[in-house]
Amino acid sequence: MANEIRGLLAQVSDRTELKAQLGAMNVVHIAEELEEMDKPEVVKVIRLLSKNKAAETFACLDSDVQQGIIEAIADSEIGSIIDELFLDDAVDFIEEMPADVVNRVLANVTRERRNLINQFLKYPEDSAGSIMTIEYVELKSEMTVASAFAQILSTGYDKETIYTCYITNAAKTLLGQVSAKDLLLSEQEKTVGEIMEQNVVFARTNDDKEELMAIFRKYGFLAIPIVDSEDHLVGIVTYDDAFTIQEEEATEDFEKMAAITPFENDYLKTGVIQLSKNRIPWLMFLMIFGTLTDQLTKLFEDSLAIMPALVAFIPMLMNTGGNAGTQSSTLIIRGMALDEIQTSDIGKVLAKELFVSLQCGIVLVIASYVCVIIFGEGFMVAVTVSLAVLATIVMSNITGTLLTFGARALKMDPAIIAAPLLTNIVDCGALVVYFVLAKAILKV
Amino acid sequence: MANEIRGLLAQVSDRTELKAQLGAMNVVHIAEELEEMDKPEVVKVIRLLSKNKAAETFACLDSDVQQGIIEAIADSEIGSIIDELFLDDAVDFIEEMPADVVNRVLANVTRERRNLINQFLKYPEDSAGSIMTIEYVELKSEMTVASAFAQILSTGYDKETIYTCYITNAAKTLLGQVSAKDLLLSEQEKTVGEIMEQNVVFARTNDDKEELMAIFRKYGFLAIPIVDSEDHLVGIVTYDDAFTIQEEEATEDFEKMAAITPFENDYLKTGVIQLSKNRIPWLMFLMIFGTLTDQLTKLFEDSLAIMPALVAFIPMLMNTGGNAGTQSSTLIIRGMALDEIQTSDIGKVLAKELFVSLQCGIVLVIASYVCVIIFGEGFMVAVTVSLAVLATIVMSNITGTLLTFGARALKMDPAIIAAPLLTNIVDCGALVVYFVLAKAILKV
Repeated sequence: MANEIRGLLAQVSDRTELKAQLGAMNVVHIAEELEEMDKPEVVKVIRLLSKNKAAETFACLDSDVQQGIIEAIADSEIGSIIDELFLDDAVDFIEEMPADVVNRVLANVTRERRNLINQFLKYPEDSAGSIMTIEYVELKSEMTVASAFAQILSTGYDKETIYTCYITNAAKTLLGQVSAKDLLLSEQEKTVGEIMEQNVVFARTNDDKEELMAIFRKYGFLAIPIVDSEDHLVGIVTYDDAFTIQEEEATEDFEKMAAITPFENDYLKTGVIQLSKNRIPWLMFLMIFGTLTDQLTKLFEDSLAIMPALVAFIPMLMNTGGNAGTQSSTLIIRGMALDEIQTSDIGKVLAKELFVSLQCGIVLVIASYVCVIIFGEGFMVAVTVSLAVLATIVMSNITGTLLTFGARALKMDPAIIAAPLLTNIVDCGALVVYFVLAKAILKV
Repeated sequence: MANEIRGLLAQVSDRTELKAQLGAMNVVHIAEELEEMDKPEVVKVIRLLSKNKAAETFACLDSDVQQGIIEAIADSEIGSIIDELFLDDAVDFIEEMPADVVNRVLANVTRERRNLINQFLKYPEDSAGSIMTIEYVELKSEMTVASAFAQILSTGYDKETIYTCYITNAAKTLLGQVSAKDLLLSEQEKTVGEIMEQNVVFARTNDDKEELMAIFRKYGFLAIPIVDSEDHLVGIVTYDDAFTIQEEEATEDFEKMAAITPFENDYLKTGVIQLSKNRIPWLMFLMIFGTLTDQLTKLFEDSLAIMPALVAFIPMLMNTGGNAGTQSSTLIIRGMALDEIQTSDIGKVLAKELFVSLQCGIVLVIASYVCVIIFGEGFMVAVTVSLAVLATIVMSNITGTLLTFGARALKMDPAIIAAPLLTNIVDCGALVVYFVLAKAILKV
């Protein structure tokens, strides 16, 4: 895809014309193109944009490009961009900057904004408070619909959304909410209090963002109000941020389940060193843990010496156990992430997994029996291997279930504990099951 | 949590009072409680709700509860609920119903609606057309802002969103869009054409929903217009549906990567038979595929006979290979799902994975060498095992990368191909690498 802005800079020399053309472009599109351009060009474009559009574009840029811009522009320009940002975007930006940039930025914004930013930086990571913004429309219940509109018109331009408005009393306690649609479709002389919805679903500043996401998922709201411990309205989180967070949370879970420490950036934008750092500890831990399985094999050296053919089926058994356990734990981990499965459901889930594993196991017993016979082993070996398959699947599903619920009960992340560790544990289990059966059936 | 509606039904006998109390409740909340109640109670509550609220609640219910309601109510009531549903919800509902219910429903809706439903059922599964809805606000560019509002007020109540309005010409070609915010903040006598945004980002009816999701992710729009092959506006998809789809797509990928055929319902609501059905084919396929690894072991029986201690490290090597390969493939699969990695990036990704695997491998060489020595094996075995670890990691990362890009190039789903199959392939590779090194170093 050709870079449209680079084309504009090359062809259009008239500044007013350039401004107009850039002004008609979508900010996400501008940001995307700026990320491919050189710093002087980027700064030039940012200066050609209106104050508001420059701030919106700035919010869409990667933090390294943001840092480049801040380092290249004058102090007064910093103030004008940062003051114009929505507060949540300003906080997101500041969180990614090195100390010297943060100091320079904070020195050049209004005092009020500096205080707000500092206050927001104090909310715990991943809390609703840390991701909310303060640019919401606040109405009073005694206002008429007409005066509510007058207020929206006078202040709405700088709000993150005007489509859901919040009603508070003098103490800032959240009393209700009203949609712009309801305001538009109501008679002008009605009061906001008459048409507002009083059963407002809200979150608290200290709530984890996962709880917030559960609300977005359940209700499909455009925005959710955030209140402090005294029920005072202090911010909102809008659907577009929720959309991004939902995507990030899923990506984090994919990474954790693949034994990778989650990282922020796109894969292609992340350096080789960073990618290795986020993988090595897990590979190392799992490898060392895996040598325990190796030691376990030694316990059965005598059996293997009597019947070396048994070795051949170890990888298949371990794989099947790993696959079955992963099936169980993945479904449960995902169910927990989406709030569909609670800790109290353990009985139901265990029963389900027991039945599922018996069904899967019985079908696979037949298949594995046939496989072993085809590969030329005798009847007794085939019986041993196929029974080991059944036992391994049951053991793996139950282990997958217990490990996931166990992690949750210990307030650890099931995605980290249950997924990568599971394979190792199930490997050991499969080995024990296999050799116990072999000793019993084959008398080795 | 106590069931609020059941409490209301027990305590409040006055029908008007019941209606009022139910009317004040959120439809998602009503639907949640109805799912725990008996069919006669559910039908009673549905009848107490206003036409509009009954339809909204109906849209939030699981398909088995929906079916129960339809089977219990009169033909005329069916028409009133289904006609009131947003078209996308009606189509979603019909798609889940058995043929006899579909026939009864279609016989009781207006002819216009029947035609529309039939038309929507024809869009390919997972296409933008199959998930869009037709309840959008359509304006003309010559309208003034004042007359645009008049139109929104007269038709807006039945629209899925009034916050983004679309401008078309007489031929229904999409010309632009305007937000309710821009309309509110503009002078009344301006024309819609003057204030509309002309660079509209849209999708086509036949676009895959993944492309649509990429647009939502990138721009954070409230709604995206859908046009047909002749650029005529035919529908919109709103953010709340996008939110649900994003969640479902991630869940599907989790399931595929855990070797489970994706299924629609929550885990707890899915029967044991269904859960087994969605797992058995994969377990079976992977097990049979896994016996190939077993056969491969046989090729190295001679080496194992000479040095049985080598067996002990097979599980650890296979695990490490599986873990390393899964790390690579998971990051690439997720990057592809989020449109961050394109097929053309294969060179960059391969280079990255090669360097990452060398870094990881070198660190793990040292650790595995120490492990083997600690476990009492000799220097030469330790050298063999630790070099096998390095070679296995490099081989696994490259295999994970190639398999993922290969699946994508063959238009297959990387999540299905690269994740479950990978472990088996990497197992074979690890085995070959190990014994080739053992033959070379230990002369077995």
